[in-house]
Amino acid sequence: MTLSKPLQLGVLLYPAFELLDVFGPLEMFASLGAERVRIHTIAATPGPVPSALGMDGPSGPSVVADLAFDDVPALDVLLVPGGVGTIAALGDERLLAFLASSAADTAIVASVCSGSALLAKAGVLDGHRATSNKQFFSLATAQSDKVRWVEAARWVDDGRVVTSSGVSAGMDMALALIARLFDVSTAEAVAVGTEYTWHRDAEVDPFVAYLNHAGASR
Amino acid sequence: MTLSKPLQLGVLLYPAFELLDVFGPLEMFASLGAERVRIHTIAATPGPVPSALGMDGPSGPSVVADLAFDDVPALDVLLVPGGVGTIAALGDERLLAFLASSAADTAIVASVCSGSALLAKAGVLDGHRATSNKQFFSLATAQSDKVRWVEAARWVDDGRVVTSSGVSAGMDMALALIARLFDVSTAEAVAVGTEYTWHRDAEVDPFVAYLNHAGASR
Repeated sequence: MTLSKPLQLGVLLYPAFELLDVFGPLEMFASLGAERVRIHTIAATPGPVPSALGMDGPSGPSVVADLAFDDVPALDVLLVPGGVGTIAALGDERLLAFLASSAADTAIVASVCSGSALLAKAGVLDGHRATSNKQFFSLATAQSDKVRWVEAARWVDDGRVVTSSGVSAGMDMALALIARLFDVSTAEAVAVGTEYTWHRDAEVDPFVAYLNHAGASR
Repeated sequence: MTLSKPLQLGVLLYPAFELLDVFGPLEMFASLGAERVRIHTIAATPGPVPSALGMDGPSGPSVVADLAFDDVPALDVLLVPGGVGTIAALGDERLLAFLASSAADTAIVASVCSGSALLAKAGVLDGHRATSNKQFFSLATAQSDKVRWVEAARWVDDGRVVTSSGVSAGMDMALALIARLFDVSTAEAVAVGTEYTWHRDAEVDPFVAYLNHAGASR
């Protein structure tokens, strides 16, 4: 697929999304500036969407969704965050239908943390290699047996679908995507500008020792 | 000062704030859950506040400010982000007055990136040791000669004022604050839960080689 200029990046928001799942990657992409990227925030309906406060549901800061599912333009990259709200979102048929249809038209679908559970349930990861966060790994794996789940990975780049491990791993994945979509020196400049020590090897997972198959709700 | 339970954490928002300056630290604090922390988003007027899109001004995603300056309750921690919007905010007398008065009543005032330029101009850093981000270091130092500016630091904990270097350094500072306000094992649990490799030594600054005294607007 040919990419747009500027790159059209959409990010899904839903109640009790995890803050850094969204804003870690968005920080890296936003650093590219208006000539290189445009960011669209997307939800079932436009307006404020509350983030998660830890495991305690949607009582964190609210972020404004600019677009409803039906109004999303053609995207190059769709970013799907995780968070405790993933559990409720797994039962949201409109959200899952949006992911399935959007993925068909989008060059790259990327997830952070339990966002891959949503993509798995929507069928977007069928036949792909993918990962998820350590603390609720089986929340993802329980959604589909058509996915080749990878336990030890900071992120997994499987071409059109790119999934990262928990929360902070989204920043490393985002820099890898910037390196792929632009070039490595651009990604390196973003990392320096944000004073971020980029964890560059997708296969080195500092948190694999914490892999926990408990926590799956189904 | 005795701290509240839950901890009352305020975060300043202003147009073209840097996303990760806000949401890196908030991710770490939000991970503590509702029993241990309450987060207040603060701006001149309540409602959506647009973030920065790189250096291109306030065209990033908008975050909802819950409270106006005059409605902020007693806080334990006030977080002040940087971003390209700092330059305009340095001319905002109401914002600077809020910082000065709020700092007098708050146990800890913490900044990320060029947020320390605002604190310096508001007089909050007078007599304190403080740091700022690498790319616009002299934007901060130009605001006050009563601050002992530290060039090489991931963050500087000077008791009531705690300032971090650029963008990502705010996450390391936030974990250090959680260790100080709760305990080290709580901070370590947050780092593991967010799969974040905590950079624990405030004095080790991986980006000091990029220190740039250019970029000061005054």
